[in-house]
Amino acid sequence: MTETAQEPFDLHDRALRDHAVSAALGQRPFDYLIKGGVLVDVVTGELRPADVGVCGPLISSVHAPGSLPAAEEVIDASGRFLSPGLIDAHMHIESSMVTPAGYAAAVLPRGVTTLVWDPHELANVHGLPGVEWALEAVSELPLRVVVLVPSCVPSAPGYEMSGADFHGADIAQLLRRPAVGGVAEVMNMHGVIERRDHVSDVVQAGLESGKPVCGHARGLAGKDLNAFVAAGISSDHELVSGDDLIAKLRAGLTIELRGSHDHLLPEFVAELNKLGHLPSTVTLCTDDVFPDDLDAKGGLDQVVRRLVACGLPAGWALRAATLNAASRLGRADLGLIAPGRRADIAVFEDLSEFKVDRVLINGMPLLGNRRFSSSFGRTDTSALQGSVKCARLTADDFKVCSAGSKVKVATIHRPRFTEWKTMETDVRDGCVVPPKSSTLISVVHRHGRRPAAPKTGYLTGWGDWKGAFCTTISHDSHNLTVFGGNEADMAVAANWVIAHQGGMAVAKDGAILAALALPLSGLITDAPLNETALKFQQIKAAMKHIVMWQPPYLVFKACVGASLACNAGPHQTDLGIADTALDRLMETPVLDILS
Amino acid sequence: MTETAQEPFDLHDRALRDHAVSAALGQRPFDYLIKGGVLVDVVTGELRPADVGVCGPLISSVHAPGSLPAAEEVIDASGRFLSPGLIDAHMHIESSMVTPAGYAAAVLPRGVTTLVWDPHELANVHGLPGVEWALEAVSELPLRVVVLVPSCVPSAPGYEMSGADFHGADIAQLLRRPAVGGVAEVMNMHGVIERRDHVSDVVQAGLESGKPVCGHARGLAGKDLNAFVAAGISSDHELVSGDDLIAKLRAGLTIELRGSHDHLLPEFVAELNKLGHLPSTVTLCTDDVFPDDLDAKGGLDQVVRRLVACGLPAGWALRAATLNAASRLGRADLGLIAPGRRADIAVFEDLSEFKVDRVLINGMPLLGNRRFSSSFGRTDTSALQGSVKCARLTADDFKVCSAGSKVKVATIHRPRFTEWKTMETDVRDGCVVPPKSSTLISVVHRHGRRPAAPKTGYLTGWGDWKGAFCTTISHDSHNLTVFGGNEADMAVAANWVIAHQGGMAVAKDGAILAALALPLSGLITDAPLNETALKFQQIKAAMKHIVMWQPPYLVFKACVGASLACNAGPHQTDLGIADTALDRLMETPVLDILS
Repeated sequence: MTETAQEPFDLHDRALRDHAVSAALGQRPFDYLIKGGVLVDVVTGELRPADVGVCGPLISSVHAPGSLPAAEEVIDASGRFLSPGLIDAHMHIESSMVTPAGYAAAVLPRGVTTLVWDPHELANVHGLPGVEWALEAVSELPLRVVVLVPSCVPSAPGYEMSGADFHGADIAQLLRRPAVGGVAEVMNMHGVIERRDHVSDVVQAGLESGKPVCGHARGLAGKDLNAFVAAGISSDHELVSGDDLIAKLRAGLTIELRGSHDHLLPEFVAELNKLGHLPSTVTLCTDDVFPDDLDAKGGLDQVVRRLVACGLPAGWALRAATLNAASRLGRADLGLIAPGRRADIAVFEDLSEFKVDRVLINGMPLLGNRRFSSSFGRTDTSALQGSVKCARLTADDFKVCSAGSKVKVATIHRPRFTEWKTMETDVRDGCVVPPKSSTLISVVHRHGRRPAAPKTGYLTGWGDWKGAFCTTISHDSHNLTVFGGNEADMAVAANWVIAHQGGMAVAKDGAILAALALPLSGLITDAPLNETALKFQQIKAAMKHIVMWQPPYLVFKACVGASLACNAGPHQTDLGIADTALDRLMETPVLDILS
Repeated sequence: MTETAQEPFDLHDRALRDHAVSAALGQRPFDYLIKGGVLVDVVTGELRPADVGVCGPLISSVHAPGSLPAAEEVIDASGRFLSPGLIDAHMHIESSMVTPAGYAAAVLPRGVTTLVWDPHELANVHGLPGVEWALEAVSELPLRVVVLVPSCVPSAPGYEMSGADFHGADIAQLLRRPAVGGVAEVMNMHGVIERRDHVSDVVQAGLESGKPVCGHARGLAGKDLNAFVAAGISSDHELVSGDDLIAKLRAGLTIELRGSHDHLLPEFVAELNKLGHLPSTVTLCTDDVFPDDLDAKGGLDQVVRRLVACGLPAGWALRAATLNAASRLGRADLGLIAPGRRADIAVFEDLSEFKVDRVLINGMPLLGNRRFSSSFGRTDTSALQGSVKCARLTADDFKVCSAGSKVKVATIHRPRFTEWKTMETDVRDGCVVPPKSSTLISVVHRHGRRPAAPKTGYLTGWGDWKGAFCTTISHDSHNLTVFGGNEADMAVAANWVIAHQGGMAVAKDGAILAALALPLSGLITDAPLNETALKFQQIKAAMKHIVMWQPPYLVFKACVGASLACNAGPHQTDLGIADTALDRLMETPVLDILS
């Protein structure tokens, strides 16, 4: 839709209301009558038989079965459950490696009718034009996407260089657009609490816009949590335990309960069940879904399914995913099957598997299969092309130069919760010999804002690598990142990715084992989801040939998060080894020349 | 506050947030620390010990007791309960017969910190200047008042003449003001359903403003209810039974649960308890509170008290009155004691009587007594003066002229649910002899828009009147309305009211038994509440000397609603006997000259 006919104002057409009112009175037929189903009433909590009359994009009537039969078209929902369409309260389409149209085609048939998209990755690659592209792309979709302004571009300013720098003024400018729903997850938690200028400018722009400022409050508790919320941040999805959930509900945060961490869900469900009611501040989100999971298991529907499998009452899960989310968005037209609301309706076959029979969005029925994506608009993707601005690399490019013959080097120890470690190693032919049992990590600036010279460091506690992996999905600056046990394979993997303008590649013994091209922004592709999912699975399978994973932290996901410098501890970036908590940035891992 | 520093934007001051954040971290003292109390957590439903730090108008921190003790001033809340300030979701200040400042002085010390005011009565007397006056008057109060635009001025266009006529364009103009919160209760239910132009224009203006359009859906059910809601109306407070409550929750309406009808409260509570949770769409309201009830029992606090006495869990009652109401208002700053929210806090001594120990509003503590009203602004009331534009009347003015000697007349039968009835009576000296056992009702236009000639009709089933009662509070046009058993006493009562520029008077045997002057708009007075309450009680006591009430319908309240022509059935107005349902308006009660 265009910004001039911005939702929800499209529902305020007088002729449309005339139609809906007269159809409710039985004076003219509904456009569609959904008949014989059981309504999931997310207000009262009841399951009750009801027919639903739809006129244009509006629900006109919810009435006793059979009492108003006249309709242009009848949809038989006998034995089915009618739920409001699901609202994903926080997500990044880019994580699924497909375009917005590809994502929509995957989730709309699963009953997801609204996404709240933080195009954080596109913004870190393209800057403001990335957000503009996102707004343009979603305007052509049948699915509703509320776009938020990425707040942390880059997430660790000064410690990494992404494709752009967003300042408060940029954020304020984007927030003036009616299609923009608010400020996306503010990740620079300590910057908020310490009132650092850059992030305070961003929060201030959000507050002044009157739109929500969303949060990312990982690990915040006690005084820090109070301070973060007092600054004006109003949501969180980074819950680490059941206690954390309760603490954040108490802090008044809207919870975007995330389905991605299976081991936490039983705790969350137990805490909510213990409260005895579902707070109206609980919404649901996916955050990040890889393409194979999206293809096989779905989006927010999978979060609902998992929560219910863990023991959350189905009515609560659906209320969180519909009415509560709509309330958070300030969208009185969404989240409820009732007269005068928008006809976004998921017809489920059951309330455990949530298998979808049909979906209506804006009053338009879609069949419950995935063959309708061809009807979606295809936004011109040329703005996303050519984002990998690196020349071919050689094995030597990944070496660390040093004087002397023996050096002390810093290493980045352990994935996820990284620590500093020091080791001694030799220097041979002016190059540091990687320390024993270390893995190389090299980050290459790929946005054309500084030289694309690899910055190489050493990982310890990352297993024994027998090849290399390269990815341009590398949170959050998405520079070209290469992991490897040897420089030669690193060059092979990197050069495949560079030649394909982004993606992932696994190399071993000089050959490519698996590869996935992501030529748009180095993040996504307009290839079909199932094809992308398959190639991504091949990448993960190939990785098992070059490294032995050690769950829960040494897993594939660790590779795409290894550069996330906004987190505490050392992280390799395109500028060196960064530790934002210690305010430290080392250009080279060499600490001392010992001899 | 002025519109330029409009709430909630006053909280978005950067220095204020700096202060709140640093105090939350313990780096500087709070302005106030409320210590030792038990927090009523309206999100989680818990009662939990917590200290609350306040900085300016903001809550900065909610923390474990004793963990952050530094404050400029400590408020000891030991043994007390901390609740968000109460929000009255729908009310008419005019019903309490005092000014906004007088009302605020009565309810703020009782923990009511926000009112949603429909200045419907002022608007019916003064038109747009009445709403302007309301906006001006509330801007000077410490209590927060969200003013809605009265939607039905008059409530029965063409059947009565009030002081003004609001059209869609007037409504649209007022809705453009940031201080205006939406469209107040749309009472012309059948006009909405039948899509009559005048009321459809009003609803359309509301929808286009993006602000809520509130409802009055008395007795609507089934198809009519669906149609009313499909038109875009989103709330109701006119519940007539527990079943009606459930039907309206199912329809997706926000419920403004009203405390005024004691006999209905047990049903409402039973239905909510049966649901097993409090829907987030349930809010509470007072609607109308007479001055004696306000003075003795309070405002929204009394609704909370009554509901809890009927068995509603205290936490539910408070959640409805706080978080749910704030959500309805789209006010993320209100309704919750949590960091970053507005410091509107009621400190209750208990959760059954809800006796108030202290109140903070916008972070400012007020003592729990009523002596602070002198500090309120006193808006210039000259715009409300001189509203009774009638000359003195004589007994003859109340007589109905007719030719002939015997006539058939229409009477208005029974209070509240009125019916048409016909009777035969004599004509003597050109005047109709009031039918046996009838009561006279005479409505005199008092707004200067047409001649102030009494329109007299006959009430039957209204008991045996031995005097007269005159009131300029006469819903909704508030014309001067006189009831009586004889014309002489009617003139005495009317002339007292006319001489005092509005109010109420009871006359018997040519003398005034009791009188209450309401010189502002003929509706309110700037006299103190307790004095007004006393005089109003004297009116009610005096009424018992002239008429024998027969509850539940033949009660004092019936007199101020006898002209409410928007309701079904016959009603006397300044234009004659009106029946909007039958589209009938009779200038005289004389139906036929029989001889």
